[in-house]
Amino acid sequence: MKKINIGIVGVGRMGSIHLENLVTKFTNARVLAISDTSPNVEALAEKYQVAKVYSQFESMIKDSEIDAVVICSPTDLHATHIIKAAKAGKHIFCEKPMDLSLETVKEVLEIVKIAGVKLFIAFNRRYDPNFQRVEKMVKGGKIGDPQIIKITSRDPGPPPLPYIKVSGGLFLDMAIHDFDMARFISGKEVVEVFSKGTVFIDKGIGDAGDIDTAATILTMEDNSMVIIDNSRKASYGYDQRIEVFGSKGMCGSENMLHDNHFHWDENGIHGALPMDFFMDRYLKSYYNEMDSFLNCLLNNTEPKPSGMDGLMSIAIGLAAKTSLQEGRTVKLSKLL
Amino acid sequence: MKKINIGIVGVGRMGSIHLENLVTKFTNARVLAISDTSPNVEALAEKYQVAKVYSQFESMIKDSEIDAVVICSPTDLHATHIIKAAKAGKHIFCEKPMDLSLETVKEVLEIVKIAGVKLFIAFNRRYDPNFQRVEKMVKGGKIGDPQIIKITSRDPGPPPLPYIKVSGGLFLDMAIHDFDMARFISGKEVVEVFSKGTVFIDKGIGDAGDIDTAATILTMEDNSMVIIDNSRKASYGYDQRIEVFGSKGMCGSENMLHDNHFHWDENGIHGALPMDFFMDRYLKSYYNEMDSFLNCLLNNTEPKPSGMDGLMSIAIGLAAKTSLQEGRTVKLSKLL
Amino acid sequence: MKKINIGIVGVGRMGSIHLENLVTKFTNARVLAISDTSPNVEALAEKYQVAKVYSQFESMIKDSEIDAVVICSPTDLHATHIIKAAKAGKHIFCEKPMDLSLETVKEVLEIVKIAGVKLFIAFNRRYDPNFQRVEKMVKGGKIGDPQIIKITSRDPGPPPLPYIKVSGGLFLDMAIHDFDMARFISGKEVVEVFSKGTVFIDKGIGDAGDIDTAATILTMEDNSMVIIDNSRKASYGYDQRIEVFGSKGMCGSENMLHDNHFHWDENGIHGALPMDFFMDRYLKSYYNEMDSFLNCLLNNTEPKPSGMDGLMSIAIGLAAKTSLQEGRTVKLSKLL
Amino acid sequence: MKKINIGIVGVGRMGSIHLENLVTKFTNARVLAISDTSPNVEALAEKYQVAKVYSQFESMIKDSEIDAVVICSPTDLHATHIIKAAKAGKHIFCEKPMDLSLETVKEVLEIVKIAGVKLFIAFNRRYDPNFQRVEKMVKGGKIGDPQIIKITSRDPGPPPLPYIKVSGGLFLDMAIHDFDMARFISGKEVVEVFSKGTVFIDKGIGDAGDIDTAATILTMEDNSMVIIDNSRKASYGYDQRIEVFGSKGMCGSENMLHDNHFHWDENGIHGALPMDFFMDRYLKSYYNEMDSFLNCLLNNTEPKPSGMDGLMSIAIGLAAKTSLQEGRTVKLSKLL
Repeated sequence: MKKINIGIVGVGRMGSIHLENLVTKFTNARVLAISDTSPNVEALAEKYQVAKVYSQFESMIKDSEIDAVVICSPTDLHATHIIKAAKAGKHIFCEKPMDLSLETVKEVLEIVKIAGVKLFIAFNRRYDPNFQRVEKMVKGGKIGDPQIIKITSRDPGPPPLPYIKVSGGLFLDMAIHDFDMARFISGKEVVEVFSKGTVFIDKGIGDAGDIDTAATILTMEDNSMVIIDNSRKASYGYDQRIEVFGSKGMCGSENMLHDNHFHWDENGIHGALPMDFFMDRYLKSYYNEMDSFLNCLLNNTEPKPSGMDGLMSIAIGLAAKTSLQEGRTVKLSKLL
Repeated sequence: MKKINIGIVGVGRMGSIHLENLVTKFTNARVLAISDTSPNVEALAEKYQVAKVYSQFESMIKDSEIDAVVICSPTDLHATHIIKAAKAGKHIFCEKPMDLSLETVKEVLEIVKIAGVKLFIAFNRRYDPNFQRVEKMVKGGKIGDPQIIKITSRDPGPPPLPYIKVSGGLFLDMAIHDFDMARFISGKEVVEVFSKGTVFIDKGIGDAGDIDTAATILTMEDNSMVIIDNSRKASYGYDQRIEVFGSKGMCGSENMLHDNHFHWDENGIHGALPMDFFMDRYLKSYYNEMDSFLNCLLNNTEPKPSGMDGLMSIAIGLAAKTSLQEGRTVKLSKLL
Repeated sequence: MKKINIGIVGVGRMGSIHLENLVTKFTNARVLAISDTSPNVEALAEKYQVAKVYSQFESMIKDSEIDAVVICSPTDLHATHIIKAAKAGKHIFCEKPMDLSLETVKEVLEIVKIAGVKLFIAFNRRYDPNFQRVEKMVKGGKIGDPQIIKITSRDPGPPPLPYIKVSGGLFLDMAIHDFDMARFISGKEVVEVFSKGTVFIDKGIGDAGDIDTAATILTMEDNSMVIIDNSRKASYGYDQRIEVFGSKGMCGSENMLHDNHFHWDENGIHGALPMDFFMDRYLKSYYNEMDSFLNCLLNNTEPKPSGMDGLMSIAIGLAAKTSLQEGRTVKLSKLL
Repeated sequence: MKKINIGIVGVGRMGSIHLENLVTKFTNARVLAISDTSPNVEALAEKYQVAKVYSQFESMIKDSEIDAVVICSPTDLHATHIIKAAKAGKHIFCEKPMDLSLETVKEVLEIVKIAGVKLFIAFNRRYDPNFQRVEKMVKGGKIGDPQIIKITSRDPGPPPLPYIKVSGGLFLDMAIHDFDMARFISGKEVVEVFSKGTVFIDKGIGDAGDIDTAATILTMEDNSMVIIDNSRKASYGYDQRIEVFGSKGMCGSENMLHDNHFHWDENGIHGALPMDFFMDRYLKSYYNEMDSFLNCLLNNTEPKPSGMDGLMSIAIGLAAKTSLQEGRTVKLSKLL
């Protein structure tokens, strides 16, 4: 069996996860090269027995042995990296979001299309077993037609302020997962966006021009409503729930807890908290999404989530920002 | 100990509940009279050993033995009945809503104030033990400052169309409970309302000018957000949940189920459905609210919920209707 | 419709419950008389408008208007009261246990049989909606053939020592409910009993010749095993659970909690405790068992639980005592 | 840092799990050799890049580079392999049980003691995060003094009959985990054993001289009681629960489910089944126990579970067999 040769650009937090997964868990791929300007890239390469290290991304994509690149560079480099990889004929796995500008994203998608390479946008939550189970139930008609979808998405703590300043803000670095989830679970497109938000957690976030707490109503093409609430900080851990209410019932998924213990005493019944580290909570999804990407390449099927999925989530995020700023609903068609 | 003499007007569904509770469960009150034009009022009076039956409300309130009236007449008679009772010097327990017109409600409150009688508006859910427990936790600071409140409020089935045509619609006959709950749990006033809604369940509801499915975001005076979703029909029973997320944690209450059984087989783990009849689900609240009303009279304390609470919920409901119709946020201050 | 005329003997804790239920909730029965030597019997009679008060049980059963007696006298009077009532031709509702001697119980049943009156033994837990649901699932084949039944039965606190000294001890005053439940749920008879037990909670209980903590394995006629654990004191409330494991699955029922609230903070997820007062926990069962008894009389059907059910539970309790004392299994056939 | 050189004997189901874990997840150990007579051992060695393959265990333990052996051979070879490894000065990680004869086990422990090597018995469940959490709560005094411990231990399906014929039967191949768990959680020794059991699932199991369903009461040195129920087949998956009831409360752990989905429809509330494959259910425990073993060697600490832990569980298992056969309680002191 042919092994897919992978080059990874950016071996920070996400890049390291993909590196380790690819090396220790996949037999149909090989990490042939990594590219990063960090001083510890050599140590990583040795640890995971990666044959080649490139200081320049441009050099890595000239390597004719490489079939595909995994882009984990900072967000502001994503578009450039995708374009260069596409032009070099490499298939692409890219962390979200592709870019903060819809214009740029459209250009990127056009270039990818012309290049004829595959582009997979890493909305890993689509590959979480819980959310996958919910999607299967919804698509399988278990609850009839969806009418109200509720997504609770709260992080254990806010990211560093410097990140927030360049990330595009809560709607584009955090809620973007939930916007994608809304489309994934329902299989419907968003028509209209209304968002409210405020700063409760850290005044610094407000000073950086962002919010840390938000509520959003998405109106879908079939008039169903998706209600999303976001917080940068849930004191009890990662709060990631979904609930889909339809004509025949309701389905959804609860949080994943640290363990299944219980404790009853004179004060009440007590149990474990939700996981509070994204790598624990979404451990399986990182494996599953890479597995899906590799299978796309091996079987020549369409990547899911696609570049268009990436574009739509960015559009919804931008609409949410406008809605928040202008205090009104925003039609998505105005942005596309 | 003095017993409070009660006259009940309207012994339909709600009136009968209060009648039975007062007769069988309270020792500090006596139902002295009932007034209703229904033919079976005599039978009810005999069953519950009520001494007097009045075909005319006006006659009942002239009865000098009567201390207080319980108003369970149709909504369009509430205002009239309150005004007459107040002018006759009777204390008043009135089913919600007082009226569909804010102007009328303001007049009613003015008359009540001048008459110096007590007016208790029967938002029974404030007296549900689950919601009371949530309110105590919130007020006791268990979750810090509330930031996001989520209210799920779905009925087992829609009311008859003729009722919908005169009820004021989903926001005034159903969500009004949730609007009151938002104020009750948070202890804060509503500043702004945004509502979306549609017809999914019964086209006839749409033809009657109403919706059957809705999503609302209330912005409170402290910028916290209350998210409410409503459906006229949950196939699995009465869905009545609340969740309060704050700076130090989260609290709330789950649905009340028919029983606590479990069943595990090859297909999954199965359990009981939520209660699907309002008299089962809210059984204790009807007792508790009456108990609270009687204690108000005996101890000369302020009724809760008050006439002002009744007015505020109606205002929020009217704002929600406007928001839905005009596709924009509505400031509550514009209506008050 | 004819009303059944009831005489209640003993209006202590249980007698008062039945009195209130009969007076306020049943239309097919009338409490005509109560008999008790307590000084407050007159006040009770007035409160519930009971026409007749008898200081002597013997006088009450001579009252030709009375159809049935409800026996809530102390345990050591049960047998005498049943015999006298039966001979007077009155139907009988009797609190458990009938007596602590199997010989006496056999005599009692013989006399009842000859008299042709109905005898209902008040194992109220058979009428708890949760346990009824479990029984229906088991009998309906939902879990195939039962193989292992587990009953958790722990009280919130021990009864007074003077009661323990005359009650027959843990196996006859407390676990007797669980022995009856084993037969009720499985529909099978007990063949063999093995019990272990000790004193953990109160040395005084040991001094009184009893235990406060026990574990029992009943072997049923179909070789299925019933495992019962008992404690006189669960610090967290009334712990009353059942679990039935069979060839096709498992079913059972969880505890009833005070409410359905939840609270998540940095220390964990917290919820309400189980109810800790028998009248709350088993509220519905007291109503339901009386309803069943009255329907027996009105429809001339066999009472359930019957006198024989009462006898079997006592036999199992006595076998458990012997097993504990002699450190061996005891065949039930040796006692019957 | 020094790496521990490991030789694995037996690369069947369990041996393969340890092989994969050691190769892909541990940096402080190296699998230097594997020994197995199976034809596919070479392929495994290549897949995991194991340098040496020995057809004879005796040859492998002569390899001076090897520090420790992981014994995953069939049960009847465990004792021989431990003895030979000990005499060769190798530390030992051995799958349970060591042997079915207490005499042999005692000899083995004596030889290990003289050799001065470490012996770790692989009761992996002690390293399951759920059970570890329970043990910590109990040892930390969260529930006061334990009084009743309940262990539910049911497999998704019976092992093959040929295995049952040589395994020592349900008490020694399956319940042995629960006997160890009783000692682990309570920190107390077993004094007396009573077991009942029968054949419900497969007549062939009975023909092989074994049972498939059992109930056991262990009396501990502090008079607390451990109640264990076992079944070879739970139709709904792996049922592995524990509950510890004590003077101040109760703690325990629930089953691990496939996922956290929920589904409400007209028939009830439905959720996921427990995991039904031991490698999923106990995934983390296999990693954790190996980590603990390696740390023992690196830090020169005592292995837990020790050889004595292995001996005690076998003794309890043999006592349970005697109790079942003779219908009486068995004192453990008689066997030791």
